[in-house]
Amino acid sequence: MNRPKIVILGGGFAGIECGKALAKVDADVLLIDRQNHHLFQPLLYQVASAGLAAPEIAHPIRSIFNDQDNLTVRMEEVASVDLEARQVKTSGDLIDYDYLVMATGVKTGYFGNDSWEKHARGLKSLDDATAIRRDILLAFEQAEACDDPAEREKLMTIAVVGGGPTGVELAGAFAELARHVLQRDFRHIDTDKAQIFLIEAAPRLLTMYDEELSNYTERSLTEMGVTVLVDTPVEELREETVQLGERTIEAANIVWAAGVEAEPWTRNLGVETDRGGRIIVETDLSIPDHPEVFVAGDLAHCIDQSGTRVPGLCPSAMQMGQHAAKVIRDEIEGKTGKNYKVRRQFRYFDKGSMATIGRSRAVAESMGMKFDGFIAWLMWLFIHLLFLVGFRNRIAVLMQWFYAYVRYRRGARIITGMGNTP
Amino acid sequence: MNRPKIVILGGGFAGIECGKALAKVDADVLLIDRQNHHLFQPLLYQVASAGLAAPEIAHPIRSIFNDQDNLTVRMEEVASVDLEARQVKTSGDLIDYDYLVMATGVKTGYFGNDSWEKHARGLKSLDDATAIRRDILLAFEQAEACDDPAEREKLMTIAVVGGGPTGVELAGAFAELARHVLQRDFRHIDTDKAQIFLIEAAPRLLTMYDEELSNYTERSLTEMGVTVLVDTPVEELREETVQLGERTIEAANIVWAAGVEAEPWTRNLGVETDRGGRIIVETDLSIPDHPEVFVAGDLAHCIDQSGTRVPGLCPSAMQMGQHAAKVIRDEIEGKTGKNYKVRRQFRYFDKGSMATIGRSRAVAESMGMKFDGFIAWLMWLFIHLLFLVGFRNRIAVLMQWFYAYVRYRRGARIITGMGNTP
Repeated sequence: MNRPKIVILGGGFAGIECGKALAKVDADVLLIDRQNHHLFQPLLYQVASAGLAAPEIAHPIRSIFNDQDNLTVRMEEVASVDLEARQVKTSGDLIDYDYLVMATGVKTGYFGNDSWEKHARGLKSLDDATAIRRDILLAFEQAEACDDPAEREKLMTIAVVGGGPTGVELAGAFAELARHVLQRDFRHIDTDKAQIFLIEAAPRLLTMYDEELSNYTERSLTEMGVTVLVDTPVEELREETVQLGERTIEAANIVWAAGVEAEPWTRNLGVETDRGGRIIVETDLSIPDHPEVFVAGDLAHCIDQSGTRVPGLCPSAMQMGQHAAKVIRDEIEGKTGKNYKVRRQFRYFDKGSMATIGRSRAVAESMGMKFDGFIAWLMWLFIHLLFLVGFRNRIAVLMQWFYAYVRYRRGARIITGMGNTP
Repeated sequence: MNRPKIVILGGGFAGIECGKALAKVDADVLLIDRQNHHLFQPLLYQVASAGLAAPEIAHPIRSIFNDQDNLTVRMEEVASVDLEARQVKTSGDLIDYDYLVMATGVKTGYFGNDSWEKHARGLKSLDDATAIRRDILLAFEQAEACDDPAEREKLMTIAVVGGGPTGVELAGAFAELARHVLQRDFRHIDTDKAQIFLIEAAPRLLTMYDEELSNYTERSLTEMGVTVLVDTPVEELREETVQLGERTIEAANIVWAAGVEAEPWTRNLGVETDRGGRIIVETDLSIPDHPEVFVAGDLAHCIDQSGTRVPGLCPSAMQMGQHAAKVIRDEIEGKTGKNYKVRRQFRYFDKGSMATIGRSRAVAESMGMKFDGFIAWLMWLFIHLLFLVGFRNRIAVLMQWFYAYVRYRRGARIITGMGNTP
């Protein structure tokens, strides 16, 4: 057999871990991503809320693999995958593979209401984050110059749709930005009057957490000045308007954190997917009838060996990436065949999960224990610094946080990309 | 007399210093800028060459004046000024003034060859810098995927036009980026073979410096791998092509650092300007027949009291801003009239100037002394950190430089704003 060709699609947590775990395998590994950087998504909301600079939470993918000779990185967009021909088609090329790991993650999804996309920005890339930062800072600038009270109120209103971790983190960060950071900046408007709405269709925030933590989160956000609306499905999004049954919220900025779905190209694979387009995998993470193709990370709909539905979190993505790499390595090294039943089966190790609400406030669950408040917040800080890729980024982020904590400021509140403004 | 209204146009070095120097004056000061941030232009080339993140060299203008109650900031674009009616017209408003300080600086100028603009990006704003960073990193990505040798060579060629401080700093930084930082990132291309051209029409680089320092600069850049072409005027710019007499350079990236000119609205003022549109001022920095209107910074064409033509540098902009403020203050406090001859006259205090070439290499002139090499580089570091606005930015930049020096890396080499790509 020739030296096998392994293609990894996506340089997120799953793809990076998969690539690293293939370091000692006698194969040619190609990692394809449409960006040149690995993005530390858990801190993306801090770029959107002017707390961190974009480069501080990103790391060039090439630099992660500088010393791994068997892996090549290519920056290209995936157009389609032909499972029968074992080929990946990118914008410019056809690439053969012996093994394929699909780890392209998910994008913002609007439950089929595609027209909503132009009224509410999602938060998936650095460009999304700097655009949200720009639009929110710009709205406060416009409010400062505005004489019409109704217009001014709208400019100072931010609606966050979706009460999961991202929505909670965004709403908390926006409240702090308006009430503490921007407070001293303006002469005509009182940013304390800025309204931040957090809108969730389910009966409580953070539905995957223990109810006690949901309650703590709602209480904390309310204290911080966020108007939390649970049990409140969004009926319709129009320009600068959120329609909730009878109630209408006028907001210059609407951020969508309510749903994700797979990229369109996954729909043409001819494999079974769930409603969000996630690919349903076997317990070894391969797809039915294609033992040479694996799915890892948010793109996988996976019930693991113990019957647990694997959640869409960073630790699960990392574990799945590593697992796919191990199965491929076993097979290349002759330890198993293509029969998925004799392969290693994936078992998700639940280390817990956490969400931050604001300064000194967070919630965390781990190993059956619950934490909230300052202790959860310290855990959150520690874990995020630990997993952030790149020593330089860690120091920079630590420094920014320390400064933000001591001085209650956010240093990245600059408006860029004005050429972009619609 | 009512409380006088002072309007400052521009939040660069001149405008900020002018605003600060008016802190104790009994007047209403309004500072207008089209950006929300003061930009530390001397380090802009480091954003363009992936050494620093954009927010690290910018500081919100509002935050500079948080504690100065007599000053209000407005983010708006200036459309025109009516000197007779004493009104500034912005995108949305008409603003009356008693005193006006015009300090909007200059933009990239192409000596009347307006069609060149689309082939060679200038470097004046954060968006310019991140666009240059994106385009250069993207070209290396494309080169890595490219099979055609001629195309690959073009993708790996950067032409910098203009051998002043900005051109020298850019060329040096691009050479380091290609030869040291990106070197380990790619598998197929050898970034050591990247070609960096620095093109200057005059017989030597840094013409305003002593010839010895020009020679040192040329020698250093050549050692670093830059092809320096002096005595070489650009005849024509076409897409990815620089025409130099007989010689043609094909370069995927062309950066223009050869000229600046005033914004178009200054041409309709009805006042005398020089060829670049700079406004010719009296020695008190007011304009003829309008003792209530001052020009400060790069927008001013000023021969000072001692007969020196004031250069377009940060220290001169700061001094001019402060001077205009003092003249206004004197008059408001009844110490002088509108007769420009009895007012304070501006005298430029030349602290010297400096340019960095690369790691451990710079040139500086001050008080008749010349410095080059490591000592000039240390002076450059120290002075730039000292004048960078914002404590947090200083710490962040110091940290990045230390890391860059020790590890020879540039942390901000991420590609963003792809939606922008032409």
